[in-house]
Amino acid sequence: MIYIYDSVLRDGAQAEGISYSVEDKLKIVKKLDEFGISYIEAGNPGSNPKDADFFKRLKGVSIKNAKVVAFGSTRRPGIKTDEDNNVKALLEAGVNTICIFGKSWDLHVTDVLRTSLDENLNMIYDTVSFFASEGYEVIFDAEHFFDGYKANADYAMKTLKAAADAGAKFVVLCDTNGGSFPDEVYEIVSKVVNNISVAIGIHAHNDSELAVANSITAVKAGASMVQGCINGYGERTGNANLCSIIPALQLKLGYECIPDDNIKMLTSVSKYVSEVANMQHDNRMPYVGDSAFAHKGGMHIDAVLKNTRTYEHIDPESVGNERRILMSEVSGKSTILSKIKEIEPTLTKNSPETKMIIDELKKMEYEGYQFEGAEGSFYLIVKKLLGKFKKHFDIKYFKVIDQIPWDLQTSATAMVKVAVDGIEEVTAAEGNGPVNALDAALRRALERFYPVLKSVVLTDYKVRVLNSDGATAAKVRVLIESSDREECWSTMGVSTNIIQASWDALIDSIEYKLAKEEDKKQK
Amino acid sequence: MIYIYDSVLRDGAQAEGISYSVEDKLKIVKKLDEFGISYIEAGNPGSNPKDADFFKRLKGVSIKNAKVVAFGSTRRPGIKTDEDNNVKALLEAGVNTICIFGKSWDLHVTDVLRTSLDENLNMIYDTVSFFASEGYEVIFDAEHFFDGYKANADYAMKTLKAAADAGAKFVVLCDTNGGSFPDEVYEIVSKVVNNISVAIGIHAHNDSELAVANSITAVKAGASMVQGCINGYGERTGNANLCSIIPALQLKLGYECIPDDNIKMLTSVSKYVSEVANMQHDNRMPYVGDSAFAHKGGMHIDAVLKNTRTYEHIDPESVGNERRILMSEVSGKSTILSKIKEIEPTLTKNSPETKMIIDELKKMEYEGYQFEGAEGSFYLIVKKLLGKFKKHFDIKYFKVIDQIPWDLQTSATAMVKVAVDGIEEVTAAEGNGPVNALDAALRRALERFYPVLKSVVLTDYKVRVLNSDGATAAKVRVLIESSDREECWSTMGVSTNIIQASWDALIDSIEYKLAKEEDKKQK
Repeated sequence: MIYIYDSVLRDGAQAEGISYSVEDKLKIVKKLDEFGISYIEAGNPGSNPKDADFFKRLKGVSIKNAKVVAFGSTRRPGIKTDEDNNVKALLEAGVNTICIFGKSWDLHVTDVLRTSLDENLNMIYDTVSFFASEGYEVIFDAEHFFDGYKANADYAMKTLKAAADAGAKFVVLCDTNGGSFPDEVYEIVSKVVNNISVAIGIHAHNDSELAVANSITAVKAGASMVQGCINGYGERTGNANLCSIIPALQLKLGYECIPDDNIKMLTSVSKYVSEVANMQHDNRMPYVGDSAFAHKGGMHIDAVLKNTRTYEHIDPESVGNERRILMSEVSGKSTILSKIKEIEPTLTKNSPETKMIIDELKKMEYEGYQFEGAEGSFYLIVKKLLGKFKKHFDIKYFKVIDQIPWDLQTSATAMVKVAVDGIEEVTAAEGNGPVNALDAALRRALERFYPVLKSVVLTDYKVRVLNSDGATAAKVRVLIESSDREECWSTMGVSTNIIQASWDALIDSIEYKLAKEEDKKQK
Repeated sequence: MIYIYDSVLRDGAQAEGISYSVEDKLKIVKKLDEFGISYIEAGNPGSNPKDADFFKRLKGVSIKNAKVVAFGSTRRPGIKTDEDNNVKALLEAGVNTICIFGKSWDLHVTDVLRTSLDENLNMIYDTVSFFASEGYEVIFDAEHFFDGYKANADYAMKTLKAAADAGAKFVVLCDTNGGSFPDEVYEIVSKVVNNISVAIGIHAHNDSELAVANSITAVKAGASMVQGCINGYGERTGNANLCSIIPALQLKLGYECIPDDNIKMLTSVSKYVSEVANMQHDNRMPYVGDSAFAHKGGMHIDAVLKNTRTYEHIDPESVGNERRILMSEVSGKSTILSKIKEIEPTLTKNSPETKMIIDELKKMEYEGYQFEGAEGSFYLIVKKLLGKFKKHFDIKYFKVIDQIPWDLQTSATAMVKVAVDGIEEVTAAEGNGPVNALDAALRRALERFYPVLKSVVLTDYKVRVLNSDGATAAKVRVLIESSDREECWSTMGVSTNIIQASWDALIDSIEYKLAKEEDKKQK
């Protein structure tokens, strides 16, 4: 059994761009508990009032399996443990497991704490034994252990011994600056495992892009706790990414980290945490990213359709992810066919419609469309080509005006006239740009006829200049991502006029939603 | 010496969201050459007509140091090497180094190629010896070597021997599915190094977040070539990230990869490639990301201000990056200073103007400006802040209107009113988009006063959505490149309104040209 210790709520909050509300933190605690994480480091109650408040709120929450951990430092130099404010805050957190971090690199003791090496050992011993004797489960995080070991191995080992002697259940070796290599980690962890009597943990940072390797290597050397963060969030380049460590240990190396049945939740847990943290989910993330099992090269696609093992290191479903076949100039016919069949299952490779659709798509790709990542527009185009598309509204006109100077915060105005079943509607709206104004006016016009559109929000907007040498006369491709909170879809437009391209993508977004609603009704 | 082999133009193009134009590829070749990459894998001329076209264009480009590589597969089963279309395309590429990839996993030979194990060995031998005997330097990429070795070690070794016997200069072991662990890589590479007489390379994919670890481990086991991609772009989760491998090998482990003086270019090369590929630069990237040396935790900031080693594994300046102290902007002077001195040589580190300029630039960067690749705008801002900027024209207003339906090919109309020395001029123009129309109207208005502008053409136009979560209300950065056939310059604008951002970049482009004309006259 490897104990997984998540710190996305504490070290994760040190990441640039992350700032949780108390509600956010409660949501993540519940999700991690459900997922089967052993230890959830919930915060540092002594460091800020928000965390102290959060621990109060946490008392009312029912946790099924996880141990919730409060994190804090050893007492300050030269005072009694029970007089330290940080220690008091930990006592008030109301949890049974405490993680105490202390210095194990002599440089930090002398240059940062500015105290003696002996006093630092006392600080570790006193603080750990204080909590252990009060009946708490204590984990000791040896900050900068690897750098410390390289600088002064003897002293670094003494800091661990102080914590172990004081009653720590785990001593955790931290590569705080993320500069260590796997072979160093293997060697040093092995030595510690042979010299310290309590269980050993690893806490790696990703500054050298080696945090996952270092964590797995430490386990192979005998560590039984892995500290890291869902999605690898954390200070600077982040902490060790648990989304890559858990499947490697459990699916490939046979260690038990979380209940077997829960591994399938990995992708959704990863997306949930990024959603709550308000961070874009990185599509290139191993195991859980949208591109992790996305095949683009024609040769790869061809092989994967013959045997998925040929280009997949694990089965995407085992971690709750899925295979995606991307379309591009480097992919062949069979890819497009499998996509068409999802929309119209009766078509075969030799149907005349298939050839017609493929020819049309190739023509559009040549003109700058790229259907990879625009499944919504792809769906509509195939439906249109098959004569099965039902238009839900007509656009009579739009007009959009930009001008400077401008006397308001909004800098564009748009007018839109639509018609649905012969009933016309004219609306106008302002926006902080022409597309924003058009979007607002169009929604206002259509929501009267289709209230279901109120649930649709745009979540992403991308612009790619295609032949940028054409300079301002260049063709652009606009990609819009929309969501109704249940499903996400992407649509696109291509034009030399960015307003037109954006408009086409907006129209597709709405038509896709309405078409899908029809599909649902027919079922 | 470790040979660095970049494949961002070939394997990188397999990444979801990347689609280079021929111009983009030429720019990246030049940049990688300047950086000191030994081998640049430029494309697969047999796989698509765009790459073939690109190799034609490449013939006119002067490359200083790098070897440009054309990539392609072994001949197909059952035919002669010189009859294979892919082989013919490689011959036509006009380069001296060829990378041939072949199968080393028996499963792929039988299930994907559907040929015999012996024929596959012949295919490798024939194709490599064909090029070697024609005088080409040949690199053999053994696809799926690690999976193949685990399944059938004897056969996998035979594929390498076939390539070595046929005259390959390097045989490269590929972890194509990215599923291997560093300890496996170490063991297997060591065995190959002891059994194969030619130089060994490593080619790792990041599906287990271990590509950097596996690449470095292979070098420690005796590999002398590392294949990877700048920024780790590539199929699925990407290829081994050269931006993390190069500094680890060169700065920490003492191997020579690129000229010592060029390591400082790492961050700017990384940003340049992401800009050209139109991919958001990942701020969490080790070494080169904006957050890589960004300190947020109060304790960390405090310690770093006492001694930077306390929370930094390397000096950020050694890779051209900089320390950032989040929420209390006090950093990064020296980089900017050297740029300011180019414009105003009298300024020193301690001039009050320097501090003022840096503060202003930091504020603008926070708002989304990025001065890398926009030297024109940078020049104007510094001049303006120093009170040395002379305005050449005033904009009284612009108005631009888009509407559908439209009865002409042009889809936007713009009106611009300018004033020069009290003389006003109103012009109007049509365009195939709003920016194109504005550009035309503005030039028409100003050329009367400044005929020198007739020589200026816009050569590039790029749009980057900054906070794409804001959807159509998002902020965009527009980058424009201009040329007067002697010099090129780039300018930018940032706004939530794409028209405004484009307009600002246009104005800067013209003001820069006119300011440079003045500078010339004064000399």
